[in-house]
Amino acid sequence: MVENVEKSSALFEQIERMVEWLACFGRTERDGVTRLLYSKHWQNAQQGIDEYMKGIGLHTYYDDVGNLFGRLPGTEENTKTILTGSHIDTVRDGGKYDGAYGIIAGIIALQYLFKYHGSPKKTIEVVSLCEEEGSRFPLTYWGSGNITGVKNLNDIKGVNDSEGISFVKAMNDAGFGQGDYCNPKRNDLECFIEMHIEQGIVLEKEAKTIGVVSHIVGQRRYTITVDGESNHAGTTPMALRKDAMYAAAEMIQTLIEKGKNTSTELVVTVGQISLEPNISNVIPGKAIFSLDIRHSEEEVLNVFCHEIFHELKLIAFKHQTSITIDNWMNEKPVKMCESLNALSEVILKKDHIPYKKMTSGAGHDSQLFGRALPTLLLFVPSQNGISHSPLEFTRTEDLEEGIRTLIKVLYELAY
Amino acid sequence: MVENVEKSSALFEQIERMVEWLACFGRTERDGVTRLLYSKHWQNAQQGIDEYMKGIGLHTYYDDVGNLFGRLPGTEENTKTILTGSHIDTVRDGGKYDGAYGIIAGIIALQYLFKYHGSPKKTIEVVSLCEEEGSRFPLTYWGSGNITGVKNLNDIKGVNDSEGISFVKAMNDAGFGQGDYCNPKRNDLECFIEMHIEQGIVLEKEAKTIGVVSHIVGQRRYTITVDGESNHAGTTPMALRKDAMYAAAEMIQTLIEKGKNTSTELVVTVGQISLEPNISNVIPGKAIFSLDIRHSEEEVLNVFCHEIFHELKLIAFKHQTSITIDNWMNEKPVKMCESLNALSEVILKKDHIPYKKMTSGAGHDSQLFGRALPTLLLFVPSQNGISHSPLEFTRTEDLEEGIRTLIKVLYELAY
Repeated sequence: MVENVEKSSALFEQIERMVEWLACFGRTERDGVTRLLYSKHWQNAQQGIDEYMKGIGLHTYYDDVGNLFGRLPGTEENTKTILTGSHIDTVRDGGKYDGAYGIIAGIIALQYLFKYHGSPKKTIEVVSLCEEEGSRFPLTYWGSGNITGVKNLNDIKGVNDSEGISFVKAMNDAGFGQGDYCNPKRNDLECFIEMHIEQGIVLEKEAKTIGVVSHIVGQRRYTITVDGESNHAGTTPMALRKDAMYAAAEMIQTLIEKGKNTSTELVVTVGQISLEPNISNVIPGKAIFSLDIRHSEEEVLNVFCHEIFHELKLIAFKHQTSITIDNWMNEKPVKMCESLNALSEVILKKDHIPYKKMTSGAGHDSQLFGRALPTLLLFVPSQNGISHSPLEFTRTEDLEEGIRTLIKVLYELAY
Repeated sequence: MVENVEKSSALFEQIERMVEWLACFGRTERDGVTRLLYSKHWQNAQQGIDEYMKGIGLHTYYDDVGNLFGRLPGTEENTKTILTGSHIDTVRDGGKYDGAYGIIAGIIALQYLFKYHGSPKKTIEVVSLCEEEGSRFPLTYWGSGNITGVKNLNDIKGVNDSEGISFVKAMNDAGFGQGDYCNPKRNDLECFIEMHIEQGIVLEKEAKTIGVVSHIVGQRRYTITVDGESNHAGTTPMALRKDAMYAAAEMIQTLIEKGKNTSTELVVTVGQISLEPNISNVIPGKAIFSLDIRHSEEEVLNVFCHEIFHELKLIAFKHQTSITIDNWMNEKPVKMCESLNALSEVILKKDHIPYKKMTSGAGHDSQLFGRALPTLLLFVPSQNGISHSPLEFTRTEDLEEGIRTLIKVLYELAY
């Protein structure tokens, strides 16, 4: 095991410098970053990373959807490749750390390992994945989906951005999608390791430096419609009403209350609501609200949804309203690799790094990789839990501790 | 007392004919009526009524805001005038009965009384009030407000319709507001009697023909803002949330539940709600909802509001959210005249007409008159409780029973 990764001011400064440098590609007026797939800023960022990686001695190459790789070749033959990295694209006016940190961490780790330990036995690659957020096109995980073979050109037929530019045209204009680069599908990967900011407040609240992710939660999303009867707010006695808002209020309260009582890990969110006709002196005839439910165990989701939807139907009946439950997203939980997690924990315990085994409530590229190969996802804290905002921030000492952990894990796996 | 107002087919046919005739002024494609204050359709309707009233021998005149009167002069000197009628304006695409019925009832009643009983002792006038609905300009009760002296030209300064036409210009273009007609303020009225459709479902549900209104309810309207904290729906555990929708759902449920348990007459409505940012996978940071509370007793409103707002603040505190309660309407209950109600009840009982003493949950011109002079408001049923819609309907036999009741009341008061 790597005994001691130096706590050098040089490493510290390199991290800060690279975060600011990468944030220059698509920096916004509010000091955020907008780096949409295949845009000019995106192209510049990939080119910048390409040159940087070349500069530190990595062999670089693109695949045909625009994923960029930096390769540190291993000395042993017939071994598979260890891949680390994250996504280069951002949401509109997002932060400097989401995605970018995982790429920077990989580059610095490979630079460090080569400098102090020379070539690894197994090849290690760092990847700047082309797309994860779905910010430009209504489609997510384009980079990791192509590598793991669950997405391909068929998925983007007829997909346009908000300005009407087709996915294919945007890809071609950026130089990809025409067979000039290698096929993105990989069969030579041993595992994937992703460093990412938590995008939540749990690590900060519990004063932990590293989050070791056991699962990426399953997500189910629903649109729930309650149909009652619109009527005059003054002339309709309470006993004669079929008030869709009243029914919806009881449903929402019951949903969230039951969510809290089911499991500390379960999260239940009603983020959207609309009423018809939505006039202050008219009883709502219709209430439509969204429901987002997440947990790391499919069985917990199954039981919760089964029970709660039964309760919602009883509430609808009590209010003389009817209910329609439309399920439009159902992503199953993804388990991260137990032995890679165990290795990380051994390293973190040995170095007395405060860490937490946790689930990820947000989706990540590791979700796609995790379904295909052993995958490790490690978090560093997000200040105040803020993400997808120019206010996104992680302390450099935390970024550094994350990179030191990555170095140690990669050393264990590849040297 | 008038012993028997004939149940003649002629009266029945006259009512049907007049309803359809008046609905021609501003008839819409959906067979509704749009007759906005001072519009061409409005002018035509008032001129039509003017001619009709002249035709049956009434002395007609306008006041300077466009209220139209038909006068049946009394034989005794030094007596005050009995006024009956309702408003000629409608909401956009409204029904044929709202307002119109009170004018038609007054005209038919005066025609009947003069035909069978000659001149009354006291003068009776029927009024086609220029405006009640507030459909064209953001201002209500313009007709009754001017007659009772609580509204005047100062109230319409700077008031425009949605097309930017000023209230003053619209009024002048229709020929009013320039002193060509008499001052609308009246000091010679003994009482006001209004026949109106219920615009609710209570009479129909209880199989009553006439509603004798004891009070027009007081109305309070509020905008309630709940401030929580917007956050990621996946990465924020339930225990760390300040979910504005969750808090609002409990508030709305508590509000309506308590309303139902306070008094059968109290009505509580949340007709509008909006969330920020209103995205399905983001915990709402802000929830804004409307609150409409009505009851016939000011004290009930006072106690309810005092108690419920205390409860809402506790709910806000429990959810770690803050609450702002903005009261933007506070109309006090108006009591109708007890002795006019008693007279009506004697008449209805004697003739075995099924009636109900009730409150009016909607506002009416009687609200303005009721604050200034003895006022009687009688309802006839609305089919399915529907109003402000082309589907508004009252059976002719119910319209007729209302007019017979009005005739008897006027006879008692004026002959």
